[in-house]
This record gives sequence, structure tokens and C-alpha cells, in this order.
Amino acid sequence: MPLHRGVKRNHPDELRDILARNLRLLRAERSLSQEDLALESGINRTYVSDVERGLRNISIDNLSRLAKALGVAPWQLLSEIKDS
Amino acid sequence: MPLHRGVKRNHPDELRDILARNLRLLRAERSLSQEDLALESGINRTYVSDVERGLRNISIDNLSRLAKALGVAPWQLLSEIKDS
Repeated sequence: MPLHRGVKRNHPDELRDILARNLRLLRAERSLSQEDLALESGINRTYVSDVERGLRNISIDNLSRLAKALGVAPWQLLSEIKDS
Repeated sequence: MPLHRGVKRNHPDELRDILARNLRLLRAERSLSQEDLALESGINRTYVSDVERGLRNISIDNLSRLAKALGVAPWQLLSEIKDS
């Protein structure tokens, strides 16, 4: 998995997984495709897809753009969303 | 300001400023120097200093490391902390 680096101390990948899950949940709630979210946020669709699989170490500037496109505060993308 | 890029739509810099303020507050609460936080998180001291001035577009892996070093959840670094 050449893209899946960064498994070192502190398990930062846990945060990638929380973000990935939140993006998929919020996007589904809003009936947006990855393409829609990409267009709305100005971020490449392939990149959005990678973030939703925990493969990318996204920056906070891009996190901010995704949050804006989804209508949530950026911190909400990193906090575990309760799901039934 | 060559380091201060990324002022485009959606004002992602607002998020940098929230993070910068939270880091300074939490570090002060814990009586840690930038050097202490750098050592604890495994992140370069100059980089920590730049993040505390909003000059860096930090990644979520490094955000996770800083949060761990400060004993908070990563999302808390991006949420505005109430201060008196």
C-alpha cells in the first residue's frame, strides 16, 4: 500500500479513518456523489475518493474546503459522528 | 508573505488561526515550551512555531501528533476554545 504511509507512533491513521467515515456519512445524508463534493469543494474527485478511504494525509486548508461544501464546521469532520 | 498562501475561497486561513490560538492556549495551560511540545510530538520546533502563527497548512497526521502530546482529541484543536 504505497499511499498508506504514516503508521508510526500515536496512530494518526485513526484520525484518517474517522474523517473517512464522516465524509461518507455526511455525503450520503446530503445525497451528494463524490463528483458533487469535489465540484463543490474545488478538490479533485480522485483525491476526495482517497480521503474517503483513509489513504491521504489531508491538510487543514483542504479539510476546511470539504467542511464548507458539506455545511459543517471543520472540527466536526474529525469528531466521531454517532450513527445508528 | 511567501509562506502564507492559500487565501482563496472558503477562507481556510480562519481554521489556521483557530488552531494557532488553541495550540498557544493549551500549551500555556500545561506550562510547556514550544521546544517541549516539539519533543513530545516528534515535530520540529520551527514547524510548531509556524503553526502557532498560522503560517503552515498542517496535515491531519501531524495534527493528531500535536493533539496526543497535549492530551486532547484532535478535533478539539480545531474547535474554538472559550477563553475568559
